[in-house]
Amino acid sequence: MTVGDELAAIEKLTQLLGTAPTGEVWVGDDAAVVGPIEATMLLATDLVAEGVHFDRRYSSLSDVGWKVLTANVSDMAAMGGRPVRAVVAVAGAWGGDLVALYEGLVAASDHYGCPLVGGDLSDAPQGGGMVVSVALVGTSEGRPPILRSGGRPGERLWVTGPLGAAAAGLALLRRRWGDAPGRTGCQGDGSAALDAAGAAHLMEAHRRPVARLAEGCAAAKAGATAMIDVSDGLGIDLDRLCRASGVGAVLERLPVTSGATEGEALGGGEDYELLVATPEGVDLAACFARLGLKAPIEIGRFVADPRERMLEGRPLAPEGYRHGT
Amino acid sequence: MTVGDELAAIEKLTQLLGTAPTGEVWVGDDAAVVGPIEATMLLATDLVAEGVHFDRRYSSLSDVGWKVLTANVSDMAAMGGRPVRAVVAVAGAWGGDLVALYEGLVAASDHYGCPLVGGDLSDAPQGGGMVVSVALVGTSEGRPPILRSGGRPGERLWVTGPLGAAAAGLALLRRRWGDAPGRTGCQGDGSAALDAAGAAHLMEAHRRPVARLAEGCAAAKAGATAMIDVSDGLGIDLDRLCRASGVGAVLERLPVTSGATEGEALGGGEDYELLVATPEGVDLAACFARLGLKAPIEIGRFVADPRERMLEGRPLAPEGYRHGT
Repeated sequence: MTVGDELAAIEKLTQLLGTAPTGEVWVGDDAAVVGPIEATMLLATDLVAEGVHFDRRYSSLSDVGWKVLTANVSDMAAMGGRPVRAVVAVAGAWGGDLVALYEGLVAASDHYGCPLVGGDLSDAPQGGGMVVSVALVGTSEGRPPILRSGGRPGERLWVTGPLGAAAAGLALLRRRWGDAPGRTGCQGDGSAALDAAGAAHLMEAHRRPVARLAEGCAAAKAGATAMIDVSDGLGIDLDRLCRASGVGAVLERLPVTSGATEGEALGGGEDYELLVATPEGVDLAACFARLGLKAPIEIGRFVADPRERMLEGRPLAPEGYRHGT
Repeated sequence: MTVGDELAAIEKLTQLLGTAPTGEVWVGDDAAVVGPIEATMLLATDLVAEGVHFDRRYSSLSDVGWKVLTANVSDMAAMGGRPVRAVVAVAGAWGGDLVALYEGLVAASDHYGCPLVGGDLSDAPQGGGMVVSVALVGTSEGRPPILRSGGRPGERLWVTGPLGAAAAGLALLRRRWGDAPGRTGCQGDGSAALDAAGAAHLMEAHRRPVARLAEGCAAAKAGATAMIDVSDGLGIDLDRLCRASGVGAVLERLPVTSGATEGEALGGGEDYELLVATPEGVDLAACFARLGLKAPIEIGRFVADPRERMLEGRPLAPEGYRHGT
């Protein structure tokens, strides 16, 4: 990288990012200047590394940009908040790669209403692939943020949609590239009867997941007591929610995306659906319906024994999708 | 990495980070919850990559942690602001490496009064070294931030200290490890007469630079019109300041750290001294003296011709330290 390369890259990105409102200064100074956040502020950061979180054969760099911003926005959704501004640090993307990455970042930024206001560019670490790190500031807009720790025994557990689509999409891509053995048609193989449109839908769920921002906000307004986004798999994320709240959980059902397996629904990550706890009296489905949101699915309850994790009468292991393992 | 590894790492880090004040939630939820910033907010991010920004033979991982936070804090200093909260995303550090990295991050966080409130952990990118990305929120505390673009012809230019120490320290380390040829004793070799204490001072300047937070704040209060931190070298950073302000610059002197060469002072980065422009009537030295700060050094003036860059009567190229090149 030369000084000229960096200047050219910054100029190109500045065009992509649009214009800062009066009183704000985005790219081009030592730090970005943005308006105050007068209510409680949320901060999150999430990083993706090539070969760990993404494979360029499965996803375009534009998809990668979309997804890393989505992962961060999903953290805001899981607090019942919304993102306000983002900064992006990139190691190892220049020229067309950098532009493709930013096209996805900007598309997501527009989708979620969260401008990218600054960043950093660097070469990749010695001998390694690309790394993209996003940090977000957000707000819970005057409401108390919904923590993982607020759950109580007896409360109802919901997910905002069926699970496993992203994991099933990744499995399909791996098989197409010969990186994983074909499915044997054994019990639980959800993709046996997939048509082309179904397969495309699953691959899109892996490449371009969507953070449930409206759902998180609606859940907070409805009185949710605890919330987490299912980014590593229901098994592990439910376990995190239970540990933080000091409760156990008994699930009566596992909603599986059409074309995905039970294992993908339970252990697959990156669906970014929200797992929400509400008190007995709160009908989350009715609240969502009033707002025109897709119906959430009630899956079980918190219980008093903090060690209990059950699914349909069987013990549930806190397993999930671990990147790079 | 396994789930257990990650949980153990987060537990260890949480101990290092200390306790969140009432109303804040740091590590352990989807996003960190922090107090509002009611004045103009500053956002910055800076990333370091192994083999690009640091070499484990020259710096401990604790030094790396210190330095990446310092680089971010320096961006706040260059706006006349101060850092408020930081998040850290790390790829490729586990176990003792992660603890060492965080020891440096926490030491810097304590030094600058900027708590680390959250982060992300990942494996390194395929085949590559470590990457550490920090993002900061800060505030200009009700004052307008000092941008790069506020300079006008005729204004005085100052640096907060002599330059070249970090670059000279890096050059010494490279020679000690046999990674660079020995100096030939040619004119401008500042290290010829260095004793052990002098050499240690230069190497420390490379490993543990200090952001000029008090100086940036004092300059803003004194009426600075434009400011930048010298992170890539005076040549390139002066050029950035001139371009943003639409002015040229004539320097009458170049303050060189004892033991450094003129080339290191001009082209070496990472000293994190501030380059400050003030109107004719502002005596920055007197303002700094009243606050007990080390005297700034007046080095020249902004001029009207935006193409002019002169040092002691010679043309000055916008060159600086480029990581990894």
